[in-house]
Parts: sequence; structure tokens; C-alpha cells
Amino acid sequence: MNAEIITIGDEILIGQIVDTNSAWIAEKLNLLGIKITQITSISDTEEAIYGAVNQSINRCDIVLMTGGLGPTSDDITKPTLCKFFGGNLVLHEPSLEIIKGIFGKRGLQVTESNRRQAEVPSSCEVLLNKNGTAPGMLFRKGGKILVSMPGVPFEMKGLMETSVLPLLKEMSSNMVIIHRTVNTFGIPESFLSDKLQAFEGKLPNYIKLAYLPSPSGIRLRLSGYSSHSETLNSEINQLIEYLRKEIPEYIFGYGNTSLPVVIGQILKSINATVSTAESCTGGTVAHLITEISGSSAYFKGSVVAYSNEVKTSILKVDANVLNENGAVSQQVVEQMAVGAGKLLKTDYAIAISGIAGPDGGTETKPVGTVWIAVASNNSLVSKKYIFSNQRDINIARASYTALNLLRELLLQEHLELNENIFGEKFE
Amino acid sequence: MNAEIITIGDEILIGQIVDTNSAWIAEKLNLLGIKITQITSISDTEEAIYGAVNQSINRCDIVLMTGGLGPTSDDITKPTLCKFFGGNLVLHEPSLEIIKGIFGKRGLQVTESNRRQAEVPSSCEVLLNKNGTAPGMLFRKGGKILVSMPGVPFEMKGLMETSVLPLLKEMSSNMVIIHRTVNTFGIPESFLSDKLQAFEGKLPNYIKLAYLPSPSGIRLRLSGYSSHSETLNSEINQLIEYLRKEIPEYIFGYGNTSLPVVIGQILKSINATVSTAESCTGGTVAHLITEISGSSAYFKGSVVAYSNEVKTSILKVDANVLNENGAVSQQVVEQMAVGAGKLLKTDYAIAISGIAGPDGGTETKPVGTVWIAVASNNSLVSKKYIFSNQRDINIARASYTALNLLRELLLQEHLELNENIFGEKFE
Repeated sequence: MNAEIITIGDEILIGQIVDTNSAWIAEKLNLLGIKITQITSISDTEEAIYGAVNQSINRCDIVLMTGGLGPTSDDITKPTLCKFFGGNLVLHEPSLEIIKGIFGKRGLQVTESNRRQAEVPSSCEVLLNKNGTAPGMLFRKGGKILVSMPGVPFEMKGLMETSVLPLLKEMSSNMVIIHRTVNTFGIPESFLSDKLQAFEGKLPNYIKLAYLPSPSGIRLRLSGYSSHSETLNSEINQLIEYLRKEIPEYIFGYGNTSLPVVIGQILKSINATVSTAESCTGGTVAHLITEISGSSAYFKGSVVAYSNEVKTSILKVDANVLNENGAVSQQVVEQMAVGAGKLLKTDYAIAISGIAGPDGGTETKPVGTVWIAVASNNSLVSKKYIFSNQRDINIARASYTALNLLRELLLQEHLELNENIFGEKFE
Repeated sequence: MNAEIITIGDEILIGQIVDTNSAWIAEKLNLLGIKITQITSISDTEEAIYGAVNQSINRCDIVLMTGGLGPTSDDITKPTLCKFFGGNLVLHEPSLEIIKGIFGKRGLQVTESNRRQAEVPSSCEVLLNKNGTAPGMLFRKGGKILVSMPGVPFEMKGLMETSVLPLLKEMSSNMVIIHRTVNTFGIPESFLSDKLQAFEGKLPNYIKLAYLPSPSGIRLRLSGYSSHSETLNSEINQLIEYLRKEIPEYIFGYGNTSLPVVIGQILKSINATVSTAESCTGGTVAHLITEISGSSAYFKGSVVAYSNEVKTSILKVDANVLNENGAVSQQVVEQMAVGAGKLLKTDYAIAISGIAGPDGGTETKPVGTVWIAVASNNSLVSKKYIFSNQRDINIARASYTALNLLRELLLQEHLELNENIFGEKFE
């Protein structure tokens, strides 16, 4: 079974928002063995919507649409769906009740534009949207289905999880797509590719390898397509076992994980805590750590020491050392790490000081120069990096590199964990 | 002139990466008056690439492609473009020189897979990519053009800015598309829509209004299409003037701005500094402030006080007050703000304490409960909010709401700034 996604809205074509819904939907459908063959973004005009729906429903089995259902008057999706599938707009009482409930809870009156959101084409099956005011709509035509959902990610996800995915699971055939991801950090794409040439040569034609680079690392994705789920699974497991032996020093986890998640798992398993002292990353490492739910178990806090005064007065960096070596130096970043660990009373501490840019670079310390230190009760590790000339990239790369340095130190100090980190536990 | 974007790569269809390139390209083309009529994401197979190129180049004048040019072996874009446009792959020496330079600077050898990146179809004009190893390629056919670029955002942007956009500017006709954005915060979409019903009724048919909601506020976008650039511009200016009078309390800026940018402009203009004390937002406010280049002029630092111990020991929150009222309380968040201002010696301080979830909620303080305080030398403002039951949304909304509270306090204390903030200065 194949599916296509249609996203509706000038805001995507005009570049004012990024389409994150499609990625989420695609991932979920792939887990059911349903392949996304195309994603199409179109304008919210009757012509564009009618045309795209007509083409997609002819090309594939399932069409999932998002957007074009807001309370504001730039939306014309529902009348167009009426035209394509027949019927006319009718009030759906249970959806109106949900709308009244949402507004009532906030002590607000239901407006006329909100009331209109409870109107749906008489030709559809309504999918109750408990998280918002626009109901989902399911249409059937010639054995194919089209689902229209609001574009608000939280509402779309709720509808997918409660209504759409269970239906698609029933419909999907025996063909299985298996994706497995191996997460690496610390090696450029072309070097990884060269290291894995022999590995790629071994792959059968129904298993593919893709490289997915980002500031948080390069993810290696193995995708297999087969009607024999168990055989495919065991083949892919063997390939992952091969990777684990080939490039162990670069692998930090398997599956849908990230450096902040892995670090959280390690710290929890050894019952240790961490803090950060951040200059050029301005709290980004703390932000990445605390995005993970449950991080309060191992994260106690941070000092964002953007000014030198904060580095000396709060983190107790020696003012003379700072003046002699500059804020972006091994000496200062090491004192920042030690200072944070003492001040925040944590077992581990990360410190970062660098020049994110675009200003502040010098001949000897160009933009992109970053010193990173990690301190524990027994060790103090520090390294210098030169990243790029782009502020956002420097902040992101410095933050993830610091997390990886911490991960390496944690594993060095807790050799007993290695098998777990690279093993099933973190899959 | 119309354009389409084609993004190549299973990683998008499989949902493992989000397509941010298209939004960036769309925004740039719209500024040139070139309308994006469709964005299509396809798999990196010969069949899909050939088919999409063939269809797009028939429908529109300009096709911009990204992706499918990496050094790894999952890429087959170049042979397919050879097939479509004719010619065969030839080595492009200047591109090879760039590749050698990039690797030389890092002290690395050029690998065979990197060398292959310098091969291009003989039917194309090469666009030198100074930021990476995959050259851009420009093809012409029947008065139409197709540009193929690498998918790495930094490299794609470099090629667009140095080669593609200047060319498109020359090609583009007299029709002008003008987009203007009014940024609001603190009012739900449906209420804003009701307030602006009369405004929407006044719009001529060639000017459209769109609502673009996100955790950072709702952006109102006016888009006008006309051959009379000056008339259109003055009409849109009048409409914006109307909005400014209709909803001044919700507007925080015009054009491509954000709350962190506006706050930076205000603080710089009054020569004041800010710090943050963050519990549930875990450094996100500091991260948002320091994403802005030049933020070191007004941002001194933060204390991320994730544990209660850090709140009392570093921010000097009274332990008895904390025990009596809990960490998520007016008393504690006010003491956090005052403590941060004193400790970090700043004129203004933001403090946030809440329950981001998914755990930690109680009957009286459910998940999503957040207390925010802003302190200055003269004022101490605090407010309680109940956001959602989603961790990521709670962190984002609390962070932006805190920034907006600071903005409101800054304007209250500096009435002379109002005209500027809502005026041309910040456009």
C-alpha cells in the first residue's frame, strides 16, 4: 500500500512556516509498512486543492491531508472536499460540544467562526478532534481513502493516533518495511562513507543504507522491504551487529534516540548528576538536556556565564587567568567546569566558551573557535574545536560536541556500561 | 513567473528529516515576485526524479531542486539529469580544486567518493559551491531553467545567494508580490479573527490576509499581487496602519522579527541589561536570547535552577517560603527574579517556575501550570498561566510568554519607546 501527503496552505509555499507534519506522518506510516511515495504542498485555493486531491487519489491508496481547516477566512478546504466527494456542509453536534467545552474551560464564548468549524461535508465520516476545534474528516472513494486533518501539529497527531493509524493498521498488507537507525557522532559523512564501503557492498538489493547528517550527528538508516518480516528483521540485526563492530567509537545509540537522551540514561543508571556552565552556547546545552522529560533526576542546573563578570563572580574563574588567556581558552573553560560542579554540587559538569560569531573573531581565535571542558570528581578533559563561520551552526555543534565529550568521559569512568549503551537496552 | 521546488531524498519521505530548505527558498523567491506553485518531495530513484522533473518543467518556468548530491552511494540524481537533459558526466576541475581545498584545510586526503562529486553532466552550467563538495548545476530547456543544488542547507543557501537569485532577479517580470507581516502575541487565533472581521471585509481581492500561529505568537501576513508596485505598497501600508490602531496591545513588531529580537532592540536602545532564572524552561529563554547575534550587549547570564537546592543556595530563595508554597508559586518565582537580578547585576530579570510535564502535576497545580515573574529596579510583576499538557509546548509557550512580559514591562517603564517599537524603526 502506498500513500501520499498533501499539505495545504500558502504559509508553506511562501516559506513562512516549515512543514513538520509531513515528517511525523511519514515516520508513523512507514512503521505500518505503508510507503509514502510523494509529499505535495499546495496553495489553499479551490483549483489547487481539487487538482491535487484528484491526482493523488488516482496515484495511491491513501491520501492524508493537513491544513486548510483553521477558523480564519483563508480556508476553503471543506467546500472543495464537498465538491469532490459530494454532499453539503452540515453541523456536527459532537464536534460543536467539544468546541464549547474548550472555550468554556477558558471561560470564553464560542464565536461564530468557531461554530462554523463544527460544520463538515455530509459525505464524510467525522473523526472527533479532542484537542482542538477543527474535526477530522474521512472520505472513501473506489476502495481508497482520504483523510483531512487540521494543520496544528498537536491536533493532527491526536487524530492520527486515535483514529487514522488504527484504521491504516487494519488496512495494511503483509509487506513490511523495517527501518533501523544507528546514531553516530564525531566523524564527517565522507569519512564514514569510506569506512563503510565494504559494508555497503554486502547489502542485498532490498536493504538500503542512507546517511542523515545534522548538527546532532550522522544517523545511518537501514531500510528493508520484504514480505518476510522475521527473516528481514534478523538480516538487519546482523548488519547492525556488523556496524557495531566496525565503528564502535562513533556510535552513541540505536533507534530514535539522541545524545541528551543517552546521557540521561547513563546518568540515571549510575545515579549521578550533571550541571553546565555555558558562555557562547547561552543555555543551549541546558535547554537540550531539559527537553527530555524526567531530566530533573540528573540535571540540577546551569550558570549561563555570558559576561566575563559572571564567569569570575559566580563560577569563580580566576580574573587574572581570564585576563591573561582570554575567555576563550583552555584555562578558563576548565575553571568554568570545575566551578560549575562545585557551585551546583554535581558529579559531572560541562563548560563551553567560544566565539559563536559573526563578531568577536581574531587572527588567532577566529569565529567558530570553541573550548569545551568536562569535569568529574576524578577527571578534567578539555578540547579545542574550530567549527564554522555561522552562528547558529557553531552554537548547535558546540552543544552536541560537549554532550558527546561528557558521554565519552562517562563511559571511560564506567566501563561496565559499554555493553549496555551499544546494546539492546538503548534501542 | 512561477516556480516549483523538488526535494529529493528518502529521508524526507520516511520522515527522518524535516524539509527546511523549501521554506527558505520560497521566501527568497517571493521577494523577487516569483510565486511558488508547488513543492514536491520525492524518493531518490531514477523513476521518481525523471518523472518529477518532467512534470514540473512542463508546469512552470523555474524548477529548483535540492538534495540527491551527497558523497554517499544512495544518490543517483546526476545520471538521471544526464538522461533528461542529455550529455554525460565529466570532471569539473574548478570544483575538484574546491574539494581539495576543503579537505586540505582540515589536513585530510580527498577520497574517491569526494572526487566523484566534482563530476557533472556535460549539458549543465556549473555553479561553483564554495561551501561544500557538491557543485550546483544549471540546465536550460525551451526557455525554462532547472537548478540542482545539494541538500545541505548552508551549501544550498550559498549557491542561491551567489548564483541563482541574481539570475532569477534578471529573469523576473514586472508583477510584484508584496508580503508584509505583523507579529502579535497574547491572543488566540479565533479571537484575533473575530476582532479583524471588519478589517478583512475591507481587503481588495488582490490582497490576502493569513494567520500564522506558533508558540512564538500569531503572525498576520498581508500578501498583495499587482503590477503596480508603488500603489500596492501604499495600500498595504495603510492596512498595516489600520491594524496598528485596531490591536496595538497585541502587536510586538513588524516584518521578519521575533520577541528575542525586539527585546534586544529595546534593551540596547535604553542601555539596559537582562538575566534569567529558569526552572521548568531549563535555559530555553537564555537560549532564545543568545541565538541573536550581538546579545552580549544586553544579556549577562542566567541561572538554570532546576533543583530546589539551586533555587535556595544560588538564587537565595527563602527555603521556608519554598517549603510553604512549593517551587511553582508566586512567592518563589518573584524571589527567583529578584535573586537573579541581584546575583547577575542586571537591570531586568526574568524568572520562570512551572510544571512542564508529563509528570509532577497535582490537583491544584496541574501539568502546564507556570508562574512567571519579571523584575526591574522599580517593579516586580508576576503572573500565573495554565498552558497545555504537552512538555514541549509548555516549555516553548512559557519561554515566549516570559519574553513578552518583559517587553510589556520595558514599554511601561519607557513610554517614549512605544512609537518606535510599533513604528518603522523595527520594520
